[in-house]
Amino acid sequence: MDRRSFLRASTVGAAATTLAAPAIAGSHARTLTMVTSWPRGFAVLDDAATYFETMVRELSDGSLVIDKKAPGELVGAFEVFDAVSSGQADLYHSADYYFIGQHPGYAYFTAVPFGGTAQEVTNWYYHGGGEQLHDELGQIFNLKGLLAGNSGSQSGGWFRKEITSADDFNGLKFRMPGLGGQVLGKMGASVQNIPGGELYQALSSGALDGLEWVGPMADERAGFQEVAKVYYTAGFHEPGSALAASVNLDVWNELSDAHKAILRYASMATTHLQLAETLANNGAALARLQAQGVKTLQFSDDVWDAFGAASKEVMDENMGDELFAKIRASFEASLAQSSSWIQKSDGYYVEQRVRVLGG
Amino acid sequence: MDRRSFLRASTVGAAATTLAAPAIAGSHARTLTMVTSWPRGFAVLDDAATYFETMVRELSDGSLVIDKKAPGELVGAFEVFDAVSSGQADLYHSADYYFIGQHPGYAYFTAVPFGGTAQEVTNWYYHGGGEQLHDELGQIFNLKGLLAGNSGSQSGGWFRKEITSADDFNGLKFRMPGLGGQVLGKMGASVQNIPGGELYQALSSGALDGLEWVGPMADERAGFQEVAKVYYTAGFHEPGSALAASVNLDVWNELSDAHKAILRYASMATTHLQLAETLANNGAALARLQAQGVKTLQFSDDVWDAFGAASKEVMDENMGDELFAKIRASFEASLAQSSSWIQKSDGYYVEQRVRVLGG
Repeated sequence: MDRRSFLRASTVGAAATTLAAPAIAGSHARTLTMVTSWPRGFAVLDDAATYFETMVRELSDGSLVIDKKAPGELVGAFEVFDAVSSGQADLYHSADYYFIGQHPGYAYFTAVPFGGTAQEVTNWYYHGGGEQLHDELGQIFNLKGLLAGNSGSQSGGWFRKEITSADDFNGLKFRMPGLGGQVLGKMGASVQNIPGGELYQALSSGALDGLEWVGPMADERAGFQEVAKVYYTAGFHEPGSALAASVNLDVWNELSDAHKAILRYASMATTHLQLAETLANNGAALARLQAQGVKTLQFSDDVWDAFGAASKEVMDENMGDELFAKIRASFEASLAQSSSWIQKSDGYYVEQRVRVLGG
Repeated sequence: MDRRSFLRASTVGAAATTLAAPAIAGSHARTLTMVTSWPRGFAVLDDAATYFETMVRELSDGSLVIDKKAPGELVGAFEVFDAVSSGQADLYHSADYYFIGQHPGYAYFTAVPFGGTAQEVTNWYYHGGGEQLHDELGQIFNLKGLLAGNSGSQSGGWFRKEITSADDFNGLKFRMPGLGGQVLGKMGASVQNIPGGELYQALSSGALDGLEWVGPMADERAGFQEVAKVYYTAGFHEPGSALAASVNLDVWNELSDAHKAILRYASMATTHLQLAETLANNGAALARLQAQGVKTLQFSDDVWDAFGAASKEVMDENMGDELFAKIRASFEASLAQSSSWIQKSDGYYVEQRVRVLGG
């Protein structure tokens, strides 16, 4: 099956089919233009944007309506930050680590190498100071940040051949955004960031030797299994990537308290519903990928050690920026607390469940 | 520090201090009476109920207001189900496994032995058929079920002395609700279910030899460390207990679409925000318990094997009920999908993070 017929067959996913209804604005509705980094129907990412749009409309009884734009309809996939910062659009739905060029601290509001799982990121964001730091960063760029969606732990990525040692990254043309991309750069890879909608073509044409995108559900929809057959299921680079729905600060400040509450709580409910959808579907998607001849692997301990050493270098290089250092300290303090408990409870429980039930 | 001064010192927790504002109903507000199973200020549980109440008020701009009642204000802690089913109250906030006497299938809407973590339960509920089955069960009792809150993986519990073998449960007077309690019964324990607000007294007086409540944050607030010093951090019985906010079905059916959306999405945002709070705070709470002389342990593999064998018996004994069997099949199919992927991604990642970073 080629990619186009696959996309037709799978239509636009569960989020869209469950929730889709025309966004009809009432006569007194406030409409917010939301530019996104995701082509329509892109699993996981556009699912999150669609949930958010739908929830805001339903919660507000149609008095607050989001007009969602795919890349190219108003601005390009990576131009959404500047468009919202400047007031050209009202909010964006994207991944904040695309904007580490604007400020390296934005990495923490998506994912950092050897960072937190989705739950650990959520713990930090709402109960460890993350949201306040997102606001502090947003003040610089005239943005009110919200997190709306999470990919879960992202796959290590797609390769044309197996990675047998860290040296195999040397010279590899690989797509990876954020600080993770800088880490692979340290390991000798030629790293590029390319919008999701252009990745299939880049991998097909040989412009890329490999890439990471999201995880089985999103990767299958994008069709990468047609052009690469080696898939690593765990990666160091994005253990729980948050998606951001950030609002122009002037627009935010003029919203009523009820509309602010609707955007904020809808962002939480979006993460809750979309992350669960992704994690409920990744297992079956992986099985279908395997049935199409994809070989699934884990990187060896040696390769993970190399990821670790290069990650430490990259993180430390950014420490000259005071706000980056402050965000890092806050995140790492929260992570230490979260992870120590989670390992003693969830972690130990799952280990015993697998041992006792044998699966 | 005795329990009363501890309660004064800790006031009523982050949820209440962050969100508390009087619920002032506007002249056109619809007020729903919500009976709960939690005394005011009970960490985790009443936190979830408070988040839900606050979100509904803020999202509706005060047009839908929840009047939250502690046990004894209208009905007792375990009478909330019948009160809402009969229309005496509009909704309850509780844990549905308290109501396995009404129907054993309700166990699945809190937690079952060797069941899912909070994330796995969420995956099943929203994307594996759980919510529809909650509705099917609710039809019998005139209820519309919603999940609003999750405790995370619950601790194995408080004991006066160490558990060195499964035989130590024989004759032990222990508090554990739900199917987990039936499992300990198989192992010879004298199992009781007692409302949370009465547990401290029961443990102090010797009416109980031990108990499980929630986890470090909630258990510290309840003061159990004053009367028992052995604490098991992982347990088989509640690996991710959902809390329920279930509405009288006649009341639900008469709500506007916007008010229905507000209750449903607020329930999701409640779980998201409260679970993160619990998991962000359990680590520090555990450290404080240890500083007060509490010894933390894990059950041995032999004890876990005994939990496993007794759990299988209990689950199988309930299979005569057709709806229980249907819910079990749905849950287990979803769990198998969820857990296989999560182990290959999150699970493997965390293992490597701990190995590479050494913590």
